[in-house]
Amino acid sequence: MQQHMRLTSIVLLTLLAGRFTSFAQTNFPPSTNQLGSDAKPATSNVPGQSFPQIDSERHAAFRVKAANATKVQLDIGGHKYEMTKDDQGIWSVITPPLAVGFHYYSVIVDGASVADPASESFFGVSKMMSGIEVPSAAEDFYNMRDVPHGEVGEHWYYSHTNSAWRRCFVYTPPDYSRNPTARYPVLYLQHGAGEDERGWSTQGRVNLILDNLIAEGKARPMIVVMDNGGGSALFAGGAPRGRGGLFSGPARVFPDTLLHEIIPMIDSAYRTLPDRDHRAMAGLSMGAFQTFQIVLNHPDTFSAMGAFSGGAGGITNLQTAYNGLFSNSDAFNQKIKVMYFSMGTVENTTPTRSLDKLLTDAHINHVYYESPGTAHEWQTWRRSLNGFASLLFQNP
Amino acid sequence: MQQHMRLTSIVLLTLLAGRFTSFAQTNFPPSTNQLGSDAKPATSNVPGQSFPQIDSERHAAFRVKAANATKVQLDIGGHKYEMTKDDQGIWSVITPPLAVGFHYYSVIVDGASVADPASESFFGVSKMMSGIEVPSAAEDFYNMRDVPHGEVGEHWYYSHTNSAWRRCFVYTPPDYSRNPTARYPVLYLQHGAGEDERGWSTQGRVNLILDNLIAEGKARPMIVVMDNGGGSALFAGGAPRGRGGLFSGPARVFPDTLLHEIIPMIDSAYRTLPDRDHRAMAGLSMGAFQTFQIVLNHPDTFSAMGAFSGGAGGITNLQTAYNGLFSNSDAFNQKIKVMYFSMGTVENTTPTRSLDKLLTDAHINHVYYESPGTAHEWQTWRRSLNGFASLLFQNP
Repeated sequence: MQQHMRLTSIVLLTLLAGRFTSFAQTNFPPSTNQLGSDAKPATSNVPGQSFPQIDSERHAAFRVKAANATKVQLDIGGHKYEMTKDDQGIWSVITPPLAVGFHYYSVIVDGASVADPASESFFGVSKMMSGIEVPSAAEDFYNMRDVPHGEVGEHWYYSHTNSAWRRCFVYTPPDYSRNPTARYPVLYLQHGAGEDERGWSTQGRVNLILDNLIAEGKARPMIVVMDNGGGSALFAGGAPRGRGGLFSGPARVFPDTLLHEIIPMIDSAYRTLPDRDHRAMAGLSMGAFQTFQIVLNHPDTFSAMGAFSGGAGGITNLQTAYNGLFSNSDAFNQKIKVMYFSMGTVENTTPTRSLDKLLTDAHINHVYYESPGTAHEWQTWRRSLNGFASLLFQNP
Repeated sequence: MQQHMRLTSIVLLTLLAGRFTSFAQTNFPPSTNQLGSDAKPATSNVPGQSFPQIDSERHAAFRVKAANATKVQLDIGGHKYEMTKDDQGIWSVITPPLAVGFHYYSVIVDGASVADPASESFFGVSKMMSGIEVPSAAEDFYNMRDVPHGEVGEHWYYSHTNSAWRRCFVYTPPDYSRNPTARYPVLYLQHGAGEDERGWSTQGRVNLILDNLIAEGKARPMIVVMDNGGGSALFAGGAPRGRGGLFSGPARVFPDTLLHEIIPMIDSAYRTLPDRDHRAMAGLSMGAFQTFQIVLNHPDTFSAMGAFSGGAGGITNLQTAYNGLFSNSDAFNQKIKVMYFSMGTVENTTPTRSLDKLLTDAHINHVYYESPGTAHEWQTWRRSLNGFASLLFQNP
């Protein structure tokens, strides 16, 4: 707990760094943008909606009906674009090329920041946000392919630590139900602040990423557990609430909930390999911070960790950090089979690059990945999961 | 297909009747309403949001930030309530007592009809709508109780009929994973137009209803399959698109998809009892219409049916309807173990009451239920499922 509180300011800075970086991008005037003739409705639209549309150069066109509004803006990726009204009361805008992957967005109608009813909504930044999926020509590791598919199940359980019924989502691999006696390793995979246990299976596409890796023989079939790490309300007031918001309630007790309730519950309800060699944890942003804290304070429970876009600033002195776990590189390398951390190149990479150098100099085995051209967003985390999952449980 | 097209106008009228009925309720002036001091945040709020709130008399208070708007309305249950602005730019309104259960709602900001970012969003009326859960003091059959819980799994499969990857949600009962050789009966449960395969497991709370019934010994443990019956885009333009919208694309081929793809796929992927005695179908609104059509045209595949708020107007002549299936009451009663249909009292009950009388006069075993005080909405369908599921697979 001491260590949690001491590092709170670091994780908050990391979180904000990611956000501020994307805010600092150039704001293009929307009038210069044209939609290509090959534009198609986004796959993130709800049925029957032809807008938003995206062309092959990733210009995106948005339309919102607001007949009596005087000012409507599109708010996406830290930019606000002015929308213009036609004589039918439809406001529209065409953006500059967007980064590939999933982006939250809102429309601001005369001061009300709301979701676009034409797109699917997702829980992010502590509210229901619209999402748009921008195709990536160069990668399809997170798309639906003609391969065997696992399932994502919604699992409810009572938590005494939280005095509440809680929900987790559990991915089981394609052959789970066909091999009724087989047992599988488990990855515990955490969301970020302002999101919740739904994030990885909707925005993150965890099932498709694992299905594709397993089909190609690039990852061992595994169970993935996505629970609620707290921090969901952090941005509910429109801005981070500081320490109180991030480490109060469920987030404060999450290490206990995971170690003493979730893991035993999963080992009882699913056919797991219930030992440290077959147990990993990863997370994004706040979940990355939690992963550093929980795995490195409990190396007898986990043998692998993945920290995506967060938490890396917490290690400065390898002799003293985490009860001296890093002080003997041979012992560390034998104990922690996979230490993976990552950052988007459109984030603040200073803490992760420093940690990378620190670990390299000390001969600590690790993987540091930078996601090209992506910010503090789901494309960074999809790519990170794809890389991380392929390393897990290979030589337990 | 002939019969599908002939009955299209009937199901559309039924759909619209439900909607128009709720539109016809008295519109109270909002200024007369007060929020009781026992008001609490709705359980349908996203984390960290204190509004909407509901008091013990079911007045609901809504708040939306729209600093520069000139007119903001709350649109709920067919009423539009004017909201008023305070000096912080927050618009608010307190409604008259709402009916118990789940209601879709929107806010209209200077002509833009959008979801309230403070509430969870749900796919309904062909767009992402806000939902508010109004507690019912008299019933808790759909609430979380301290009983064993089943799981709802997200299952993907390729459909040749649709040339598309499709998703269904599958409820497996609490003891499914603990009894690895047990087999279970299956209920195929369908959504209405403007909704999709998510409806029953989110708005409908199918898992909690079944968990509670099974725990009390009131229902046999069963698998429930919730797939996409089409019609999701029907209201995408703001109003029903007529025959073309309701029976084009996935809805047109849904009988084939269900009979020739979904049922074999489920019987292969899950431990089912794969015979007619252990197979039932039910649905709401458009799904009720589909249930009449599919079950009564395929009595060798199904032994039970439930039609909630729809489809009852399709049977007028018992000698000729459905290839004479009703012409011999003894034979019908032996073949169709459960024939259940229902309507909310705040809907047009003329077609269901007529069918009830027709069947009673002909000594056809059936159950007709009216949900007190509810309209064409989820509380009607939750209650209907609760009653229907308890009758299923009792003497197969």
